[in-house]
Formats: sequence, C-alpha cells, structure tokens
Amino acid sequence: MDEVITTAHGSGGRATGELIAAVFAKAFHDEMDDAAVLSVNGSEKIAMTTDSFVVTPRFYAGGDIGRLAICGTVNDLLMRGAKPAYLTAGFILEEGTKVEELSRAVTSMAETAREAGVTVVAGDTKVVEGHGGSEPQFYINTAGVGLMNGFGDAASVSAAGARPGDAILVSGTMGDHHAAILGARLGLEGTIRSDNAPLVDMVRNLLQAGVRVHTMRDVTRGGLGTVLKELATSSKQVFRIEEEKIPVSPAVKSFAGMLGLDPLYMGNEGKMALIVDEADAELSLQILRASKYGENAARIGKVEAPVADTPEGSVILTTAIGGLRSIDVLQDEGLPRIC
Amino acid sequence: MDEVITTAHGSGGRATGELIAAVFAKAFHDEMDDAAVLSVNGSEKIAMTTDSFVVTPRFYAGGDIGRLAICGTVNDLLMRGAKPAYLTAGFILEEGTKVEELSRAVTSMAETAREAGVTVVAGDTKVVEGHGGSEPQFYINTAGVGLMNGFGDAASVSAAGARPGDAILVSGTMGDHHAAILGARLGLEGTIRSDNAPLVDMVRNLLQAGVRVHTMRDVTRGGLGTVLKELATSSKQVFRIEEEKIPVSPAVKSFAGMLGLDPLYMGNEGKMALIVDEADAELSLQILRASKYGENAARIGKVEAPVADTPEGSVILTTAIGGLRSIDVLQDEGLPRIC
Repeated sequence: MDEVITTAHGSGGRATGELIAAVFAKAFHDEMDDAAVLSVNGSEKIAMTTDSFVVTPRFYAGGDIGRLAICGTVNDLLMRGAKPAYLTAGFILEEGTKVEELSRAVTSMAETAREAGVTVVAGDTKVVEGHGGSEPQFYINTAGVGLMNGFGDAASVSAAGARPGDAILVSGTMGDHHAAILGARLGLEGTIRSDNAPLVDMVRNLLQAGVRVHTMRDVTRGGLGTVLKELATSSKQVFRIEEEKIPVSPAVKSFAGMLGLDPLYMGNEGKMALIVDEADAELSLQILRASKYGENAARIGKVEAPVADTPEGSVILTTAIGGLRSIDVLQDEGLPRIC
Repeated sequence: MDEVITTAHGSGGRATGELIAAVFAKAFHDEMDDAAVLSVNGSEKIAMTTDSFVVTPRFYAGGDIGRLAICGTVNDLLMRGAKPAYLTAGFILEEGTKVEELSRAVTSMAETAREAGVTVVAGDTKVVEGHGGSEPQFYINTAGVGLMNGFGDAASVSAAGARPGDAILVSGTMGDHHAAILGARLGLEGTIRSDNAPLVDMVRNLLQAGVRVHTMRDVTRGGLGTVLKELATSSKQVFRIEEEKIPVSPAVKSFAGMLGLDPLYMGNEGKMALIVDEADAELSLQILRASKYGENAARIGKVEAPVADTPEGSVILTTAIGGLRSIDVLQDEGLPRIC
C-alpha cells in the first residue's frame, strides 16, 4: 500500500480497490459496500448508499455538480433494484465560494430530485479555508435511502447474479460524461454533452414488467471495462463482449480517437450495464429503448461458464478487427475528479 | 445575503441560518431539516440525517475526526428519539494525505460505531488536489438511519415540544469540545479533553423508563445559547435559565475566562439539552447521572408562557450576580472548523 493518497486512489480502478482493502475493509470487517440492503424493524427492507461529488468544472454541457449529486446516489439505489425515496445532502464550501454559484447548483439538485421522484430530507453545511489563490471549490455529499421492492421484486438482482447463457446489455452510449468533462477542461465546451441522468424510468419499467434482471450496475468511474471485470469476478463467470456492439456516439468516438482514449474506460453518469436472462433479452432491449435515456440501448455480449483457458472472472473482448483482448479493471490514474 | 461564503456561514449561528434560508430552503421548499422522520412502505418510520466533519486539528485530546463523524450523526438521530442503526461514510481526501493518518481515523470510526451500536454499511472515497504547501486535509461525511421507537415511544419528542412548566436540563458540562479544539490550536494540548461521545446510553435509558421527554437537542456548533434560543422560538415559549446552574468544568471556566469566551456559546460534541415534563424532572436527572457520559447532568431552568414584556421565543438568563440577560443565537463567526 502507498504511504500517501494520490489521485489514482480516486480513480475507481485498481488503486481505489487497494485503498478500500487496506484501510476501510480492515476497520469495518467488509461490512461496507457501494450500497447496502438493510432491515427496518424486521420486515421492511431498505437500500442505503452514499457518494461525494468533487467534479471539476462544476458546470458543464449536459449537467452540473448538483444534478450529478442527485443522479449518482439515485442510480446507486436503483442498481440494487430499490425505489429511490429519501436523500440527504452535505455541503463542504471553501471560503470565497460565490453564493450565486452555490445557489445554481442547489437549484439544479432540487430540479433533478423532482425528476427522479426523491425528496431531499436533511442537509448540513460546513465551511473550510480556500486554496489560497485558486478558485474556491465546493463539494457535495449525498446519501440515499431506497425502498426495496418499491418497483417490483428485486430479489434476483445482485452483483454476483450473472449466469452462463445470460445476455449482457448496456443502456446507451459509453463515455459521454468523461468526454464532456475532459472537453470542458480543454476548452472544447459544447461539442459533447454529459449523459448526467437519473435511471429511474428504465429500472422501474424493467422491474414492473417482471424482466429477470440478474445484475444492474451504473457505469461511472473506471468505465465499462472496470464494471464488467468486477461483475465477472463476483459472479465467477466469463463475459464475452464484442467491441463493435458497444454503442459510442460519433462525437465521443472521434474525441477519444484524437486523444488516444479507450471508450471502454471512459466514465458515464447516466448509463448502466445489465445482465438479464437470455429469454428476456429482447424484451429488455425494447423496454430500455422505450424508456427515458435508453434510446441507444444495445446487447453487447453474453455470459459463459469458465473453462480451462478462460478462468472465472475473465472478460474477453472481440475487437473490431476480430482479435481477442482480455479486459481488466482500470489500471492507471484515470481522469481525476470526473464525479 | 452576502455574495461569497465566509467562515461565519459555517458557525451554526446567525449567518448559517441566513444561508439556509437564502439558498437551501428556497430550492427545497423547507423540506430539508437537521434530521427527518420518514415512512418506509407505510407503517415503519425511520429517522435520517447527515453531517460533514472538517474539524482541525483532526486528532485532539478526547477524540478525533473519526470518532466525531460517528458521534455527530448518531447524536442527531438520538435527538429525534430514534435508535441509531445504519451509517454511511463518504471520504474526501486531499492528495498527500498520509494513509497511516487516514487509517487511524477510520479505526477510531469503527471503534466508536461499535460503542454506539451502529453499523457503517456503505462508503465512498474521492480525492481532490492538495492546498499546495499546507498540510493535506481530509473530510468525512456521515449519513445515518435510525429506527423510530427503537428505544420506546418517541412521539412526544420534537423541537417545538416545550410547554409552560417544563424543566430544562443539560446532560453535563458545557464547552469541553470547543476548549479542547481551541487549546490544541494554541498549543495547550492535553489540559482539556473533548467530550466527544455518543449519547446512546442516556437516551435509551430515558425513553425506556417512559420519561416524558418533550425535546432533546445536542449542543454543538453555536453552543447552549444558540440551541435554547432556537428551541424557545420553535416552541413559542419563554425559557428562563440560571447561569450558576449551568455546569462548566473548572478547567473550561478558567480557559474561557482567560480568553474572554462565554461558555454559553462554546460547542460540545457529547452533551445535550433536554426539556422534560416537570413531574419527570428528578427522575430524568437520576437517569442521566447514572448513564454513561451523564454524571454532571443538571437542571438549569424552566419553561414559561410568554407575557407582554417577555414575548415568545425569549431566553432569559439570570446571571451569577442576579442580573437578567436576554440570550440570542450566536451572532459572530464562532470558532471555525470546530466539527
């Protein structure tokens, strides 16, 4: 384990995993998770999650830190199959933060909360010294409670739920948020919009239709490659995906090509990967495409049982030119402060 | 409203109230509170709250940022009469933070969570750039869910619950945390210990004994003066308190005297003010004094109905020399980053 924190520990990739293992899992005996399912007085179940948001710039094409702070936590709850209900908001403000700017972000939070059907029920504000010279920053933490089975039976939804024969889908184009943030930092604002969105509509529609969803995971920091590697590992299966089937918008494709980035490791903030029973794959695609923010949903691969030369946890990508590539979690630093 | 954020907005006093009114209450239509009581699938009720912790120094006599992050949220839930159950933890780390130091704080969180009987169920880590030159900082947000009626009937507990004739109590000495933090900054470490503690034991004992508790409020930022003024205002009553009855340790009294501080506006992190039915006042004191962290509990005053010259919301302090002083919420900046 490194001795000091670096930006790589915030990447959502390998270094983040090492920090969690060395510091958090040790102290909390693995009781901590991205989102947890909990009992309330025995019978009722809730899901609970938290995320902090430090994105820079705080306002960008397609979203802002306020919209992001609602979507991030709402989507985490949805991925457990819960109906998002209540959020808290904690603000850490640097001295010198413009009240007008804070107010714009808070207004955006309120609008996004209404869109997502959640209520922000409690808040807290702290002030810290500024960075001395550089523009003052502010950070937002949200925590959320969702109602299990609020949208229908979510008992089959788990990170380890993939089974041989299952279909692997994504709800839309990859890399849009990453490209929007990086574009804004490079002064290319406006060419690519972030996909910053709450996925309430598509998850509700899938669960209410009784689709056998085995796994849902929002594709954020670390990108699709990291998400699929983690899900293949936890389900102990092999994932086979086809590069040509992964939707990437022409603008993001050309942006990524120009900068030498791989869309497989570019984060989103309004997309999910899902693994469904093969018999429900076509129905799932129809539902996704008819849902808000799901018009570019696609089937990208399938789950197979591990065999000798492709052990459990393998993610094998067939490239556009027919080669095979083994996919791992994000190894490098990733883009700092993407969310 | 000011145009930029200053440390006064983090004081918990007048400026914090103005920021909440101008920015947060406007966007969220007053749906945000310190802690909220919510329904889960109709019948079961939960309480939910959040707090961020930016205390400096992060380690001090009697506590640290990790212990504080658990106690703050646990105590907020207790003040609604809820049994604290589940917490989330969000970490914002500046580059260069020592992993050893983070690990010590996280270990302290885990120990304090065990003491308080809560489970940290979900977490998140983000990394931001350092302050360039100054020592790297890290911040912790916790959000919590408590089970209403987990310790007994809490229906009568509310911020507006004070009634004429009620007794006003405090659970112990005032100002210890404030003096410990300020002492550490002045290089006087070790002379005064923070009171950093979870109040689970005393709240459980009070509620399980069936004491008619009308209001509980932890005395943190802004101190006892701010808390009592807010409670008198929300209950539309008059509070009369006696300076001589407010417990202050000899060390804090001399520290405050030396620096010209008023213990009435010095924060704590392990004390509460409570308002109980007069008939239960003596029993409440006995229970508090027999509970962990309550050995210095005291009765400090009583609630009266408003009359012409003392309108609703008045807090009248009889000073040690027999004068009368009207108490308002904290007006000045307060001590920055006390929690």
